[in-house]
Amino acid sequence: MSLLRNFALGTVSVMALTSVAQASELRDNALEMFAALPSTVPALNENVITQEKIDLGKALFFDPRMSASGVFSCNSCHNLGTGGDDNMPTSIGHGWQKGPRNSPTVLNAVFNEAQFWDGRAADLAEQAKGPVQAGVEMANTPDNVLATLNSMPQYQDWFKASFPDEADPVTFDNFAKAIEAFEATLITPAPFDAFLNGDDNALTDQQKAGLGLFMDKGCASCHNGVNLGGTGYFPFGLIEKPGADVLPPDDKGRFQVTATADDSYVFRAAPLRNIDQTAPYFHSGKVWDLRVAVAIMGTSQLGTELTEPEVDDIVAFLGALSGKMPEVTYPILPAETATTPRPTGEVVPN
Amino acid sequence: MSLLRNFALGTVSVMALTSVAQASELRDNALEMFAALPSTVPALNENVITQEKIDLGKALFFDPRMSASGVFSCNSCHNLGTGGDDNMPTSIGHGWQKGPRNSPTVLNAVFNEAQFWDGRAADLAEQAKGPVQAGVEMANTPDNVLATLNSMPQYQDWFKASFPDEADPVTFDNFAKAIEAFEATLITPAPFDAFLNGDDNALTDQQKAGLGLFMDKGCASCHNGVNLGGTGYFPFGLIEKPGADVLPPDDKGRFQVTATADDSYVFRAAPLRNIDQTAPYFHSGKVWDLRVAVAIMGTSQLGTELTEPEVDDIVAFLGALSGKMPEVTYPILPAETATTPRPTGEVVPN
Repeated sequence: MSLLRNFALGTVSVMALTSVAQASELRDNALEMFAALPSTVPALNENVITQEKIDLGKALFFDPRMSASGVFSCNSCHNLGTGGDDNMPTSIGHGWQKGPRNSPTVLNAVFNEAQFWDGRAADLAEQAKGPVQAGVEMANTPDNVLATLNSMPQYQDWFKASFPDEADPVTFDNFAKAIEAFEATLITPAPFDAFLNGDDNALTDQQKAGLGLFMDKGCASCHNGVNLGGTGYFPFGLIEKPGADVLPPDDKGRFQVTATADDSYVFRAAPLRNIDQTAPYFHSGKVWDLRVAVAIMGTSQLGTELTEPEVDDIVAFLGALSGKMPEVTYPILPAETATTPRPTGEVVPN
Repeated sequence: MSLLRNFALGTVSVMALTSVAQASELRDNALEMFAALPSTVPALNENVITQEKIDLGKALFFDPRMSASGVFSCNSCHNLGTGGDDNMPTSIGHGWQKGPRNSPTVLNAVFNEAQFWDGRAADLAEQAKGPVQAGVEMANTPDNVLATLNSMPQYQDWFKASFPDEADPVTFDNFAKAIEAFEATLITPAPFDAFLNGDDNALTDQQKAGLGLFMDKGCASCHNGVNLGGTGYFPFGLIEKPGADVLPPDDKGRFQVTATADDSYVFRAAPLRNIDQTAPYFHSGKVWDLRVAVAIMGTSQLGTELTEPEVDDIVAFLGALSGKMPEVTYPILPAETATTPRPTGEVVPN
């Protein structure tokens, strides 16, 4: 009896040791491809982050008066309550027009090398200027944004506090910088970070198997770094083009930025943090099921027909990328004044 | 010197006493017409308020998936960052359609005797069912709302925790009750409450003068109670009809509810808390300037041409009705699942 018991305990210990060794090896391999989120808000290029700037950026991010109609704020399409995106194939904007591509999550976006599906904005400040002006999104102009901000003394004070060394701080550049500062705080530490940081038990066995497959099958060749994506450009359909529903022929991706033939149907590898919160998938937003999306990636990018159990394991691993959402107190915005430009839903042809 | 000093001190004391007596008389008069906000969340009819229900209601209030398109949440038109309304003449809704009337504030709305401009909903729970189904607003159906909620296990758990005695708690009635419970917490104590509660210094001299005028001129005949309005129905244009821009002939107000000739152009007296945060004014939303709105009320309802200084004083008093906004942590909403109904921006003709 006691022999049996010792034997059994011995087996458990050996298994535990093996498991520890396996986890350690898996982590070593993973750390060659991925990095955990930092514990502090990252420094930004030429944009010192202060609490004043974060607070101003938060107000701007949630203020629907930054759109011509008064209907849309940044948070409309990058909703912090639903994974930092809007859960639609492509967003609905000014005049009920549809945007051309699926809205990407704002969460952890500061760690992407460039912004938008085609990487046409170098950073979040440059990105923030886009949707505000896009006719199918917020349909506003920089002049009207500044007139709106200048009409409210509270906004003027907030800009002064955020950019204390500037004589005339209410500028469209500073508008974008404040939003960037707020967005840089939107970081979601996940079980995968805990695993990378040394906690063997942060991932389930299935998630560890999925992580192994994610690296072995080649997913991590494109989806790597802090965000498991967001750092490089790759043709969608590298091995085999997916159907026209998933890859519409008229959206040539990065070609529209570089006008280089090689960039036809090239897109920035999607960052994968919180991916199970941000259906539907791909730039076209046509795939609702993460399992289907993973299978499509297998055939189109890797030339591999992933088995169902493999897909299950990878999807389980992707679940470990969903992190703790930032706690955000809803901002109280300044009231309009007599000089605030009035909202207009009018659709002006381009 | 010491005589002079005593004399001066004596004068101040007499003045202070007079001022205290005046403030006390003003307060006594005011307390006959108005009431301060209570210090606790009010009890609701057949809807016990629990923290679980408030939290569920908050999630529902902010969830754009309660609309058919996924674009609009309750907060879209009753934005807690901008005075509990949307700062538009009339709201823009599903399919970029315009609503018929100005969006009223949700703040302190629990103290209104009935909801909507025409009082067609008895309480906030009944009100909450309206915009969700209105074709020009959220364009959803109760069935689709329930299918959406039932598709997300987290919502099912929240409903169970909020309605623990019910076998099948995910119902459209409970959806509305949870929203009502959250909205009942949206109370904004203001300087006017502090004055009613005994603080002479809570109002400036001009605000006190404005309060006096507000009562003497007759404004308080309709705008009284906790919300200075929201409790009775009155013809707009009692003495003199305002122009057709402000009172469009095709909107007959409460007549549309009661079909009684006497109710033509009858509306619920607008509640006035936070009124300086909620331009534009009137059910038509056509007046942006609070001073103009006050002057129109003078001529149309009281037959009085208020002087500019009188308007200034009354507007100053109305400013004392703007209170401390509730601090709301933005909710993290459940992620969709495979069975969540997909958003559709399609406009279905009635």
